Amino acid sequence: MATKKARQQYIVGVDLGGTNVVAGAMASEGGDTIAVRSIATSAELGAEGVVDRIVGLIEGVVLDTIHKTGASRDDFLGIGIGAPGPLDRERGLVLIAPNLGWRDFPLRDRISGRLGLPATLDNDANCATVGEWWQGAARGGRNVVGITIGTGIGGGLIFDGRLFHGSSDLAGEIGHTTIELNGRHCKCGNYGCLEAYASGPAIATRAREVLVREETSSLIPQMVGGQYERITAQTVYDASHQGDAVAQEIVRDTAKYLGAGIANLLNTLNVDVVVVAGGVTAAGDALFVPMRAEIRRRAFRPAVEAARIVAGTLPGTAGVVGAVATFKMQHLGDL
Amino acid sequence: MATKKARQQYIVGVDLGGTNVVAGAMASEGGDTIAVRSIATSAELGAEGVVDRIVGLIEGVVLDTIHKTGASRDDFLGIGIGAPGPLDRERGLVLIAPNLGWRDFPLRDRISGRLGLPATLDNDANCATVGEWWQGAARGGRNVVGITIGTGIGGGLIFDGRLFHGSSDLAGEIGHTTIELNGRHCKCGNYGCLEAYASGPAIATRAREVLVREETSSLIPQMVGGQYERITAQTVYDASHQGDAVAQEIVRDTAKYLGAGIANLLNTLNVDVVVVAGGVTAAGDALFVPMRAEIRRRAFRPAVEAARIVAGTLPGTAGVVGAVATFKMQHLGDL
Repeated sequence: MATKKARQQYIVGVDLGGTNVVAGAMASEGGDTIAVRSIATSAELGAEGVVDRIVGLIEGVVLDTIHKTGASRDDFLGIGIGAPGPLDRERGLVLIAPNLGWRDFPLRDRISGRLGLPATLDNDANCATVGEWWQGAARGGRNVVGITIGTGIGGGLIFDGRLFHGSSDLAGEIGHTTIELNGRHCKCGNYGCLEAYASGPAIATRAREVLVREETSSLIPQMVGGQYERITAQTVYDASHQGDAVAQEIVRDTAKYLGAGIANLLNTLNVDVVVVAGGVTAAGDALFVPMRAEIRRRAFRPAVEAARIVAGTLPGTAGVVGAVATFKMQHLGDL
Repeated sequence: MATKKARQQYIVGVDLGGTNVVAGAMASEGGDTIAVRSIATSAELGAEGVVDRIVGLIEGVVLDTIHKTGASRDDFLGIGIGAPGPLDRERGLVLIAPNLGWRDFPLRDRISGRLGLPATLDNDANCATVGEWWQGAARGGRNVVGITIGTGIGGGLIFDGRLFHGSSDLAGEIGHTTIELNGRHCKCGNYGCLEAYASGPAIATRAREVLVREETSSLIPQMVGGQYERITAQTVYDASHQGDAVAQEIVRDTAKYLGAGIANLLNTLNVDVVVVAGGVTAAGDALFVPMRAEIRRRAFRPAVEAARIVAGTLPGTAGVVGAVATFKMQHLGDL
């Protein structure tokens, strides 16, 4: 009896953020992303308007993938969606998304229904971590912490080779752990959170505070007429790369805060990989070298020795890759 | 064909500490501890001397159990041992135990060989957590953090119903997480660790520091001739219970430190039970009420709502019960 060769099957991944939506396809057994596309989220259109945009984006990815690979529509297994939490994974709801203005929105079923394909929903930081674990810098890890640093600081946890969601899908909020008991006020209401020191906006805030009293920094001319808002984490990294002493100090301080936060995770969780992703990693060795030194100073030596601390290698697509992976794990079992 | 009723089988649990060793037996399906006994560790005798003492202790427990239950020697399945880490569980070694002066000591096989019974070795804080989970305050939890507060602050983690050891058996060192970036120096070499604020000795140290400048406190007469070492965590709790304002302030501060540490764990791990055990819980509501308030102030509301924060209900025996449980899990599968 002749066996027909199994056709290649595909999964679409969607990474929904407050500013942009990124989507792409992948072969179900992994490999490179295909037909990655990005559009503005346009949250001002409301939830149904954003759904329209996401559906259009996915249609484009599907057509492009068919065009590039010769696949047919029947070769698409489904859609993995990563979205900002908190979520109700079981019911596929986005419970609260301040950047989108959504409450209890059934994102999964709206997308699934419109496209006639099964879909899954998981937290965006979880997806980014799983993406780096499946195809990126955390490959081969058994216990992994993923830290995504951007406007906020998110986290994902993989324990004994499985994504860990906690008791109500909220695990991984490592940006909101206190590292300074009576420290900076955080948007979450707490004081001294890691995010209040080391997120992109927090880096910019700390730079502006220092620059008020500085006279020699390449960052000063950028603030024409006292426009402090022109200072961003990116301008700080750029100035640091170019040797600006003030900017370098800000980056070193960032490394200390992140180092303390990561040391806490190593002593608590004894993971074998910490993968740090997001805009902040643009600082490169200027960040990672002092960050690793701070981790060594604070964590137990055997916990440090057990772990590699690495930058993500899937900038821009880790969330898409991880969304594909979470769909695959839920529908086809393990990765 | 007549089926002979299966005989009740027993497991011995041993909880080895720097000061005392506690042992007891339990029926393999759980229930009450039988024949619990405690002796001084006498670490000064050296590792083999301590092994002699533990073997004698276990023999006593076995004989007592036989006497009380009518069991025979053949009804004992083995011995679970809890010991201070770091350990090599697979090889049954105590790697470093500063309070005992041991390095790379094959405790499991020395005990097993002397008694002719299989044995397992796990971390003492893990055992205490598993004990409270199996038979105590954390019963029914799916994701549990156990915090044991005494001379140090140890922790145990249960994720998705399984004890989590991390990548090299070091997970759970939650006493050594930074809550104050440039805070108090900790024995571990770090600054600002939770343990440096909220362990028994740290509580006593903070009390002594305050008393230097106090004139009215019931604790002052206890320091006859300036003997500050007479102030311990216990004298602070006692004075607090009796209404001493200075002692009450120390206990409230302790609650804040512990609250910050527990809030970090809730936001990171979204567990459904946090069980706090050890001497510090002697403070009762004076500690737990402000501690829960601090947790609510610092952690995300849904993470707080998902978790119950409880005191351990097996004081003195959680480690023994958990040692029995870890043996059972390794030899008979799940609990």
